[in-house]
Amino acid sequence: MRRALRLAALAEGSTSPNPLVGAVVLDENGILVGEGFHARAGQPHAEVGALIQAGEKARAGTLVVSLEPCCHQGRTPPCTEAIVKAGISRVIVALQDPDPRVAGAGLSHLREAGLEVISGVLEAEAAHQNRAFVHRVRTGRPWGILKWAMSLDGRTALPNGASQWISGPEARHWVHRLRAGCDAVIVGAGTVRADDPLLTSRGLRQPEPLRVVLSRSLNLPATAQLWDTSLAATLVAHGPEAESRQSVRWPQGPELCELSASEPKDLMQELAKRGCNRILWECGSQLATAAVQQGCVQELMVMVAPKLLGGSPAKTPLADLGFSCMDQVVMLKPDGSQRIGCDWLLQLII
Amino acid sequence: MRRALRLAALAEGSTSPNPLVGAVVLDENGILVGEGFHARAGQPHAEVGALIQAGEKARAGTLVVSLEPCCHQGRTPPCTEAIVKAGISRVIVALQDPDPRVAGAGLSHLREAGLEVISGVLEAEAAHQNRAFVHRVRTGRPWGILKWAMSLDGRTALPNGASQWISGPEARHWVHRLRAGCDAVIVGAGTVRADDPLLTSRGLRQPEPLRVVLSRSLNLPATAQLWDTSLAATLVAHGPEAESRQSVRWPQGPELCELSASEPKDLMQELAKRGCNRILWECGSQLATAAVQQGCVQELMVMVAPKLLGGSPAKTPLADLGFSCMDQVVMLKPDGSQRIGCDWLLQLII
Repeated sequence: MRRALRLAALAEGSTSPNPLVGAVVLDENGILVGEGFHARAGQPHAEVGALIQAGEKARAGTLVVSLEPCCHQGRTPPCTEAIVKAGISRVIVALQDPDPRVAGAGLSHLREAGLEVISGVLEAEAAHQNRAFVHRVRTGRPWGILKWAMSLDGRTALPNGASQWISGPEARHWVHRLRAGCDAVIVGAGTVRADDPLLTSRGLRQPEPLRVVLSRSLNLPATAQLWDTSLAATLVAHGPEAESRQSVRWPQGPELCELSASEPKDLMQELAKRGCNRILWECGSQLATAAVQQGCVQELMVMVAPKLLGGSPAKTPLADLGFSCMDQVVMLKPDGSQRIGCDWLLQLII
Repeated sequence: MRRALRLAALAEGSTSPNPLVGAVVLDENGILVGEGFHARAGQPHAEVGALIQAGEKARAGTLVVSLEPCCHQGRTPPCTEAIVKAGISRVIVALQDPDPRVAGAGLSHLREAGLEVISGVLEAEAAHQNRAFVHRVRTGRPWGILKWAMSLDGRTALPNGASQWISGPEARHWVHRLRAGCDAVIVGAGTVRADDPLLTSRGLRQPEPLRVVLSRSLNLPATAQLWDTSLAATLVAHGPEAESRQSVRWPQGPELCELSASEPKDLMQELAKRGCNRILWECGSQLATAAVQQGCVQELMVMVAPKLLGGSPAKTPLADLGFSCMDQVVMLKPDGSQRIGCDWLLQLII
């Protein structure tokens, strides 16, 4: 199963809306005869790849797979059929698929076909690996990561707005890798105006993650790096209160998308519909605060730079959360830390 | 020498104004026959303790000592004389003593007496161990540590001032240990008014570190835990602009001390005169900022709690530093990090 989980991880960031899945086939003597992983949506499922590799040797053998095999016709045929047809006699599964079209039915199907089925092996590890997929299936929203870089004294910019660069070059490269693991990267209109960011993974992911601007008013600059969609697609999401689209002298590239409200939670539903499992908030304090308050942030990644910026009017990571006593504050679960160049990366789960 | 450095460390926080020193005596066959460390000012130096333990076995032996032996009459007689008298034939030293009364003269004295002298062994480790003493001797100011606890979003209190507690119980116990390693703990009048702190090591150090209030106006609350000096001494330092002492209805306990100005640098000179090697700033953002700007902070210890406080008007660790571009900001050198309970401790050198 550890091998299956490692195989699954090979496709990290590229399977959405599908989960990460890895599979291993052992012959009747326990010899490894096939392995596979799900590379991207529309391509063969992990089990099928492993069974094809195993061929006739799969007969009376064991399939070890990190997620419950599907039993429905999607873009590819049901895996349970392929497993039965291959003559597998035992299936070992880590995690049950939360997708309501599967949700235990895959395991039942296999048992009914007379196969031995063992489920729950390394379940916690498998659930962690697929936490974005599981969250999206259960809540209808992608797993949200909020990332910011700040100085040791908690500033995200100098009082005059200067913020390039708070973190070091290694940390900025790490951000490109983080983006490569996400399906979309979101900023607000303020960040477009202030920083004119590019928001790509610098080629680490193909295609690049969708770049999203959440704008209340569509009062956006006429020129911005994000409007050039030759490198990556850009989506401009707005609420019904925005000026009519006709009045926006809009460049060719970006797609406009009207939400029922220009709020993080509405954007999350839209992005889940578009197949995003994991998204990255790279926005300013106002939008970040709204995203936290609306439950659109599941994980925080904070880069702390060994610098003092000072400045009472300087920007800080979050705006008002409306707390008046320490019992009310948002408590987080530390999930690791590491040095990235000169900076510290602190990771937490909400 | 590693053994000598470990012996020296046993007295951490209790030798001021003296340095930490450890010593080992080997007999002429290289067998360990004595060891010692300097426990506190007025008590025997490390070399003397080790030589007494070795007795006659020191003859023709080797003395390994983490700091250059003194050659002047202080509260105890010169160590160089004791070394020569004990018949030691070789002295191995880590760090030259920066004290102008020694500063190489101890080594010269030993060489002139015919002993073999090797200096500079594990010099960097010894310099790091005695960085507070070396800094005080070179600059006339104690080594300053600035400590604060903040939330992940860089807040040191909620907008309404509530700050108990941002960090967890383990972190608060760690602060008591930190205080135990310092000769004085400094706050401003604002912290006395807002938090009414006790500022002791909770008995981890005897005597407790000196508690210092730096006050411009002597406009202090009539009652405060710091005014009860039965647990620990309190010093109230102020500038000449403060109201005359007569007009202050002052409780019995605290000592008043007029500085030439109520500024961090003037306070540092006063505390160095009083024999402080290492002091701890536990103050609010205004005083902390002045301490940084006046070069009174050499080390930062920042406790980051896994919590989100938010609040634009919330307190932050530092006030204005007057920077307008990123090239100007205070750059720090990371010096380690660790988990303390739920919190992260980040340590840096300025």
